[in-house]
Amino acid sequence: MLINDKPHDECGIIGIFAPNEDVARMAYFGLYALQHRGQEAAGIAVSDGVMARVHKEVGLVWQVFTPQSLASLQGHYAIGHTRYSTTGSSSIRNAQPFLLETQYGPLAVAHNGNLINTAELRREVLARGAGLSSSSDSEVITMMLAGAEGDTWEERIRNTMPKWRGAYSVVMLTRDSVLAVRDPWGFRPLTVGRLPSGGHAAASESGALRTLGCNAIREVKPGEIITLSDTALRVRQALPPVTPLARCVFEHIYFSRPDSFWDGLSVHQVRQRLGGELAREAPAAADVVIAVPDSSVPAAIGYARASGIPYNDGFVKNRYIGRTFIEPTDSLRRRMW
Amino acid sequence: MLINDKPHDECGIIGIFAPNEDVARMAYFGLYALQHRGQEAAGIAVSDGVMARVHKEVGLVWQVFTPQSLASLQGHYAIGHTRYSTTGSSSIRNAQPFLLETQYGPLAVAHNGNLINTAELRREVLARGAGLSSSSDSEVITMMLAGAEGDTWEERIRNTMPKWRGAYSVVMLTRDSVLAVRDPWGFRPLTVGRLPSGGHAAASESGALRTLGCNAIREVKPGEIITLSDTALRVRQALPPVTPLARCVFEHIYFSRPDSFWDGLSVHQVRQRLGGELAREAPAAADVVIAVPDSSVPAAIGYARASGIPYNDGFVKNRYIGRTFIEPTDSLRRRMW
Amino acid sequence: MLINDKPHDECGIIGIFAPNEDVARMAYFGLYALQHRGQEAAGIAVSDGVMARVHKEVGLVWQVFTPQSLASLQGHYAIGHTRYSTTGSSSIRNAQPFLLETQYGPLAVAHNGNLINTAELRREVLARGAGLSSSSDSEVITMMLAGAEGDTWEERIRNTMPKWRGAYSVVMLTRDSVLAVRDPWGFRPLTVGRLPSGGHAAASESGALRTLGCNAIREVKPGEIITLSDTALRVRQALPPVTPLARCVFEHIYFSRPDSFWDGLSVHQVRQRLGGELAREAPAAADVVIAVPDSSVPAAIGYARASGIPYNDGFVKNRYIGRTFIEPTDSLRRRMW
Amino acid sequence: MLINDKPHDECGIIGIFAPNEDVARMAYFGLYALQHRGQEAAGIAVSDGVMARVHKEVGLVWQVFTPQSLASLQGHYAIGHTRYSTTGSSSIRNAQPFLLETQYGPLAVAHNGNLINTAELRREVLARGAGLSSSSDSEVITMMLAGAEGDTWEERIRNTMPKWRGAYSVVMLTRDSVLAVRDPWGFRPLTVGRLPSGGHAAASESGALRTLGCNAIREVKPGEIITLSDTALRVRQALPPVTPLARCVFEHIYFSRPDSFWDGLSVHQVRQRLGGELAREAPAAADVVIAVPDSSVPAAIGYARASGIPYNDGFVKNRYIGRTFIEPTDSLRRRMW
Repeated sequence: MLINDKPHDECGIIGIFAPNEDVARMAYFGLYALQHRGQEAAGIAVSDGVMARVHKEVGLVWQVFTPQSLASLQGHYAIGHTRYSTTGSSSIRNAQPFLLETQYGPLAVAHNGNLINTAELRREVLARGAGLSSSSDSEVITMMLAGAEGDTWEERIRNTMPKWRGAYSVVMLTRDSVLAVRDPWGFRPLTVGRLPSGGHAAASESGALRTLGCNAIREVKPGEIITLSDTALRVRQALPPVTPLARCVFEHIYFSRPDSFWDGLSVHQVRQRLGGELAREAPAAADVVIAVPDSSVPAAIGYARASGIPYNDGFVKNRYIGRTFIEPTDSLRRRMW
Repeated sequence: MLINDKPHDECGIIGIFAPNEDVARMAYFGLYALQHRGQEAAGIAVSDGVMARVHKEVGLVWQVFTPQSLASLQGHYAIGHTRYSTTGSSSIRNAQPFLLETQYGPLAVAHNGNLINTAELRREVLARGAGLSSSSDSEVITMMLAGAEGDTWEERIRNTMPKWRGAYSVVMLTRDSVLAVRDPWGFRPLTVGRLPSGGHAAASESGALRTLGCNAIREVKPGEIITLSDTALRVRQALPPVTPLARCVFEHIYFSRPDSFWDGLSVHQVRQRLGGELAREAPAAADVVIAVPDSSVPAAIGYARASGIPYNDGFVKNRYIGRTFIEPTDSLRRRMW
Repeated sequence: MLINDKPHDECGIIGIFAPNEDVARMAYFGLYALQHRGQEAAGIAVSDGVMARVHKEVGLVWQVFTPQSLASLQGHYAIGHTRYSTTGSSSIRNAQPFLLETQYGPLAVAHNGNLINTAELRREVLARGAGLSSSSDSEVITMMLAGAEGDTWEERIRNTMPKWRGAYSVVMLTRDSVLAVRDPWGFRPLTVGRLPSGGHAAASESGALRTLGCNAIREVKPGEIITLSDTALRVRQALPPVTPLARCVFEHIYFSRPDSFWDGLSVHQVRQRLGGELAREAPAAADVVIAVPDSSVPAAIGYARASGIPYNDGFVKNRYIGRTFIEPTDSLRRRMW
Repeated sequence: MLINDKPHDECGIIGIFAPNEDVARMAYFGLYALQHRGQEAAGIAVSDGVMARVHKEVGLVWQVFTPQSLASLQGHYAIGHTRYSTTGSSSIRNAQPFLLETQYGPLAVAHNGNLINTAELRREVLARGAGLSSSSDSEVITMMLAGAEGDTWEERIRNTMPKWRGAYSVVMLTRDSVLAVRDPWGFRPLTVGRLPSGGHAAASESGALRTLGCNAIREVKPGEIITLSDTALRVRQALPPVTPLARCVFEHIYFSRPDSFWDGLSVHQVRQRLGGELAREAPAAADVVIAVPDSSVPAAIGYARASGIPYNDGFVKNRYIGRTFIEPTDSLRRRMW
């Protein structure tokens, strides 16, 4: 591999088809609502029905996009991505979406998940004479589809999906469509909803869809390919769901926004119930229940409610803690925070 | 005036005399703990006993300071400032601390508050042939002291204080001392504490002092001038406290960190009691008590406790909302958030 | 095409194999000496014998590279590129070198010239299922070689060269070699020389090689593939030179540095002789011969010498004219400069 | 002193009163034409007849000013400054123009030269209770005028000038005037001219005035105060010229643009004559005369003409040498350039 990166599991992705809207701006605010899922890099690819363009950079969503860079992304079809940082070294080479010109026209891919047979898939792609410019699973997915057989993108995806082993919730942009695809194990979340001005959107979390005003929100089910359209969604079960499903438990515990729904369950409620269950399984003789914000607040409230011990707030996050270049001295470090 | 600015009441200030420490770094982390009091600009002035230097810029604390800019601030005496933004246009000209060379040596001032007789004071300064480079109260204070009579900085401050009408909690840096001064009405908070490695620190909030490991924390009382020293503090009552005091109620309600103490009271506890009092004065037939984070969380918990209505969390702040250059479309704006 | 760019003929390229040197730093100073051939973007790719890395960005050479970015480029094999700007809109997507992982290991390409059958070559690449991420000829060249047949890179290049129609002076980086290739028409210059510390370098102009201290400088002849090595160069005539050659006359007139040699001729001397010839073909009754700097200075001196009319300097370039964001008013524009 | 800086002799200054023009933009292009006199910092101060504003930063003229920063400088009166860098460390604190609010209204000063009694003048300013924020002579000059006696700015300048010992060519901006002042020794150049659209401009060099389309260009004579006006200039001989004058010889040899006039002499012609004189005083048996560009080109041509030895060009400056962060290796350094 050119670059040896750790897996990046917790990205945020969004896809939009809105025939009457400035999709780049919608994608921007959708990514903003998914910023907690990835702070390393962000990108948006847009097609106007003829040509596709992408803008992506290392940084937070608000740092990556300016009015100028958004203005260059005209069109009605968009996908976007925020990338999770697991290491200090981050690279623009692995930023998403990946946009390629293919024999079937432009194709852009934004991917949340981690394939386990990447090495094998890379060898397959390289062996047919295609070169790869990054270590990203997303580029492998894009390049496989560039060489896939089938008359439509849906067919090419369906023909290729059986080769992908592992977690993949994916949104794809073609010249004139946006597709949402989820692996048959259902590792990572992916939801779709109807936009009030017409068209549809897909996003990692239902909270981002509600930010855009969506209604009729449903999950992309394991193994499904959904094509966003002006009116009804076109849903195809490309692969049968694997039994049992292999959902990532950290989505409910940690990654997801509390206002998201996932497996038909409110993340906020699941966290409260987990807290209640903890109170029953691990009772404590305490005066107060205090959460470490933010994810554990509902669990602490649930614990307090089930145990009868009063809840109180004891920690507040410094909202300006960002990215400091300054190291505390040793004596400071020992007594700070 | 050269620039017509609105009053800036809620700044954060810090002063440090630490004979055995890198004070610039301590001031940096002190300002970090006060970042919530001002996000427009930040600055630190340091003296090594011979020469004073300042670094200040528009931006958040972590943006303003790099290892290089901190390294240029060597010494044992420091003051710092974070500036509150009340308007979109912010200017480096009004950033603090203000550092001047005077006939008595270098003098830097960082000021939290708002004088009401600024126009009159400016005329007085200009009339004696001194020019002013900004619209900042802080520069007026500095320039008045540059021309004040007295054998020591304490005397010059005491001689000048009667002219200042309004709110001023101030830290000052001279060639070889750091002073903390508070107006006789006691509008704005100011506290001092002892550093574990020797020396003392002053800060707008006790929370920032605890970040630096301080103990023996006390308030600077209305009308006091306190000189930070290696061993004991030198405290002088320059002006008698005005009765009744005129404390800013928003410190307890909104501005201060919940872990700060102010008037001998925990900000967190005051907020909880206000919530309890609200439950008694304005009872509600409700199913749940929900806070709008962050300041009102303790009040909501207090309300819930007093009323018996269960507390729950219903809002989560997007921690990445910072500074976006992108405006939502009208249709988006109507349905977002 | 994803992006519709104008041809970029006048780029600067450099290739270095230096077994005992920090090649990234050498490539940097080589590009600096070629900066006049392209100011839009710059990049360097380096291999340490195992892994190849690239750093490229929009900007001048000194803007693109910092000590940090150069330090990440460790190795003994390097190629570099400066890109010429023909339009205001410049894109990182078309910056060079292009680096791909292929079935044969890493391959990076930096290209000066313009193929005339690019559209046909792109279709060929896309048809075998490889996607393209830019409109750059250089990516097409790289992707064609990623799928070429042959046991060595030299063989794969030789097998592919007959398909490339047009101007191409190319340097290539593989895991453990640097190659220099020139089209059989000889459109664009390319030279190689021996480094004093061992190894060789290739560059668009001999002036850049002399900056690096090279001696034994010779041209890469039309149709040649030259592999840089520790000791002797390995030279292979891959295609017979086309008769007559089709050299770009603007290299002698305009693009090249006056200290470069090209076709065995000093660029400076050619310009002086052109001036002398102009004096004979177009004599003028004038008092003084004045050049418009910089390229025409030798021609004006040649004209003066042949005509007997004294040479003088009459124009000086403002050395700080760079990149201004400010437009003059109409009234200013009419009378400026 | 707060900051211990070396003298800065070779700055560029400009002053404009143009009742019918966007003076900030004119000042910008005037500074651009003076960029060779100072590359460290640049600034422009403008008055609209009511309020004065300044924008200044470290950097080249094109880096310091954006359309936004220029747009904030509305008015008909302007002065500008480019600052010469004699050390690596440059500071925004010493950037010019200096703008102060005074008892007489706003006053901004841009200064080319170096006073020799600065220490004494600083003590005088500090003693009357005014503080100083930089080590710049320019601030001292401004602060002295802020406390000077007299009914008009002309009178205050005339009353203060006798105290200034050393080189000073100064432009000043008040609420509703622009003044040009030159020391009685005539160390540094300063010229004025009439703008074609009405009003006048002053600049360090006549070349900058011609860039703005000026005609009727004359020098500000030693000891003069000239007030720019709509119609005729108001010229006042504030101090008698010192005999003999003490002109800086490096202006003719090195600093000035060759198209500037100075002491009634063309800089270009002086350089050519110096070359001719050198040929007579130091004849050489040589084949060719070569200049080290740019300043010595006219001298070399003059030498060639007087000696009969042919002139040729032998060096070309790399126009992209700017500001590189990269150090060559030792082995490279020994053989580069």
